[in-house]
Amino acid sequence: MTRYKLLLEYDGAPFVGWQFQSNGVSVQGVLEEAITKFSQEKVRVEGAGRTDAGVHARGQVAHFDLVKTFDPSKVREGLNFYLRPHPVVVLSCDIAAESFHARFSALKRSYRYIILNRKAPPALEKDHVWWIPKPLAVDAMHCAAQYFLGQHDFTTFRATGCQSSSPVKTLDQFDVRQHGEHIWFDVQARSFLHHQVRNMVGSLKWVGEGKWKSEDIKKALEAKSRAAGGATAPAQGLYFLSVIYGA
Amino acid sequence: MTRYKLLLEYDGAPFVGWQFQSNGVSVQGVLEEAITKFSQEKVRVEGAGRTDAGVHARGQVAHFDLVKTFDPSKVREGLNFYLRPHPVVVLSCDIAAESFHARFSALKRSYRYIILNRKAPPALEKDHVWWIPKPLAVDAMHCAAQYFLGQHDFTTFRATGCQSSSPVKTLDQFDVRQHGEHIWFDVQARSFLHHQVRNMVGSLKWVGEGKWKSEDIKKALEAKSRAAGGATAPAQGLYFLSVIYGA
Repeated sequence: MTRYKLLLEYDGAPFVGWQFQSNGVSVQGVLEEAITKFSQEKVRVEGAGRTDAGVHARGQVAHFDLVKTFDPSKVREGLNFYLRPHPVVVLSCDIAAESFHARFSALKRSYRYIILNRKAPPALEKDHVWWIPKPLAVDAMHCAAQYFLGQHDFTTFRATGCQSSSPVKTLDQFDVRQHGEHIWFDVQARSFLHHQVRNMVGSLKWVGEGKWKSEDIKKALEAKSRAAGGATAPAQGLYFLSVIYGA
Repeated sequence: MTRYKLLLEYDGAPFVGWQFQSNGVSVQGVLEEAITKFSQEKVRVEGAGRTDAGVHARGQVAHFDLVKTFDPSKVREGLNFYLRPHPVVVLSCDIAAESFHARFSALKRSYRYIILNRKAPPALEKDHVWWIPKPLAVDAMHCAAQYFLGQHDFTTFRATGCQSSSPVKTLDQFDVRQHGEHIWFDVQARSFLHHQVRNMVGSLKWVGEGKWKSEDIKKALEAKSRAAGGATAPAQGLYFLSVIYGA
């Protein structure tokens, strides 16, 4: 068997999410179909992160095995041909070691959440940003975001249905920066709980509006209760950016 | 009568273009409808540039007159409400002098053409870039683009159906720059012929591929024949960026 590693970009809008589900089209599903059309082999694709419905990716990583060995650039071209017209593309394909696992070998995952902060709604970026018409205090949100760094019990920022065995996660980076009319929330950690990024952004937005003080983030963390956190930010502003693997 | 000036963003994909046409939905049409719903007055909207089907805008300017005088921020909010779900938004609204005309008062117009230059097709930017999988020589295209500067007879780069009385135009700026996987073609002039930007970009792409030398752009200009120019670049990569008016 040969193991292939894919770097993927996709638009989350038309999908029920990464993972196969009976009630709609999944990214995993269209990928598996394209691989079968290309190789005539039945496969299971494993992704680094199970993005939710509406969440986008600029650097999702996935792997799968084939009996046959193909030139990886032919795999990239073939899959991009069979993936049409779905908005999923293979940015690159490599042959990976048998021990490589897109999900379990990942050391770091990066997400970016994008808010469009202007009076007018988006026309060109519909379904690709969270539109907030009232000005947000970016510096206050950045300052508050630093409370998330390090190891914490993230129960307050975890979806009630989250199936992770532990609510303890370690955040390496959380930068909130203005880029013209956009605000970027850049987060990095080994792994995240279900809805963790969107729940953290939803609470930071309350800080940006002045509804919460920076220290309220600390209090929310300490409360260890979903009810103590802000509302979940919508999926369409979230991008799975990249994954770092060991040497 | 009160004259209102609008700054507009729109996604060109679902429209037959700026101008009203019987065979589909136009930007002008949905704007006029929204203004009537907001004000109960029948209006004609004039735009600074009549963008083609599929062409986007980040800074189209338009004007219209109403008998009633409204607070311009209420006009912006009202039109953005009634424009939904069309991907057209009013970025800002101002009251203009009676002498102001979106089209005839314009001193400069700026367009950006965006090529996505990478092996994989676009997933997140579908219908918003021209995808070219083979690497293009950006410096050669920039160098060649400088032949377009100044006053020329642009017959070679004008649509055969173009209704402008003269093929002579004066270009002020033509910069071709790499931005990551994207190539931006930034052009400025007082006004343009029909398809002029897309025809110039289509010829520059031939330079980028090595099919043409830089000097072939000069020869094409001198030929004064549409047959001497490159193919028309597709509409979806073109953005109407901004308009400059006099003091």
